[in-house]
Amino acid sequence: MNIILGIDPGSRLTGYGVIKQQAGKFVYIASGCIRLGTDELPERLLRIFNGISEIIAQTQPTIFAIEQVFMARNPDSALKLGQARGAAIVAAKHAGLEVHEYSARQVKQAVVGTGAADKAQVQHMVRHLLKLPANPQADAADALAVALCHAHTQQSLIAMAGQARKTVRGRLR
Amino acid sequence: MNIILGIDPGSRLTGYGVIKQQAGKFVYIASGCIRLGTDELPERLLRIFNGISEIIAQTQPTIFAIEQVFMARNPDSALKLGQARGAAIVAAKHAGLEVHEYSARQVKQAVVGTGAADKAQVQHMVRHLLKLPANPQADAADALAVALCHAHTQQSLIAMAGQARKTVRGRLR
Repeated sequence: MNIILGIDPGSRLTGYGVIKQQAGKFVYIASGCIRLGTDELPERLLRIFNGISEIIAQTQPTIFAIEQVFMARNPDSALKLGQARGAAIVAAKHAGLEVHEYSARQVKQAVVGTGAADKAQVQHMVRHLLKLPANPQADAADALAVALCHAHTQQSLIAMAGQARKTVRGRLR
Repeated sequence: MNIILGIDPGSRLTGYGVIKQQAGKFVYIASGCIRLGTDELPERLLRIFNGISEIIAQTQPTIFAIEQVFMARNPDSALKLGQARGAAIVAAKHAGLEVHEYSARQVKQAVVGTGAADKAQVQHMVRHLLKLPANPQADAADALAVALCHAHTQQSLIAMAGQARKTVRGRLR
């Protein structure tokens, strides 16, 4: 069993989503967002660190998954996003979690089946995959999608490893 | 008495410098740099967080001063710098320090007397102001310069406050 914490970091709010992966099934545990308010930067970064530390203490994940950023729009937004990411990743590493990064394309591919999916499609599929009664809020949906991407990737790898073992056994017969 | 930790964050190494400000004098305490190695990003960010936490534990500063970034060269380097800054600022806030940000121009102005000073001039003045036997290494010098900038700014403010008090007293006589 894996408990996966997915994070969608931002300079105004940071979405989080926690899922459990057990016997090929995904179970929703929690999601929401940490609002950073209008305080000065150091205070906002501490809020990310403390918020994530609290979620980790409450939900006890072993895996932390976060969106990888390849191409930021401009230097100013890249700096802000970088600061938020830095605070989030440090909270995860400080708590001893394994950290995995996935590109937006990988997340959409894993959850919707195409790397070019839009936000509404991601929300819809997250709701469907986790059997939620309603569409999750957009930032929480993105964070849950990152967690699902990790779960899916791991499951595919395990399936592939199983396939490889079968093939090897087949050859040995 | 103030103990000030200055930080010059970077994605490859993070410079630090600690000075004591007492009765209008600056005393050198420590400086150096945290090398981040070639590990993956989360490991490098944890190294910044742990390195700064250790320096704080050893030197017991009350103030944390860091260079403010106004204009990053490109989105990719801005993201990397942002992540390093985020990890550094979180370490300071997590330890309960006051965080102050100064622009590169303010730092050069405070230490050399002109906002257009080059690295060699900063190194030279840091050595002179702290009565060091040799020029400090470039990253450590930048970190010490940020700490000196904070000390200088505070001193100027105190001097100005003193001046204001004198003026008020003069008027009251």
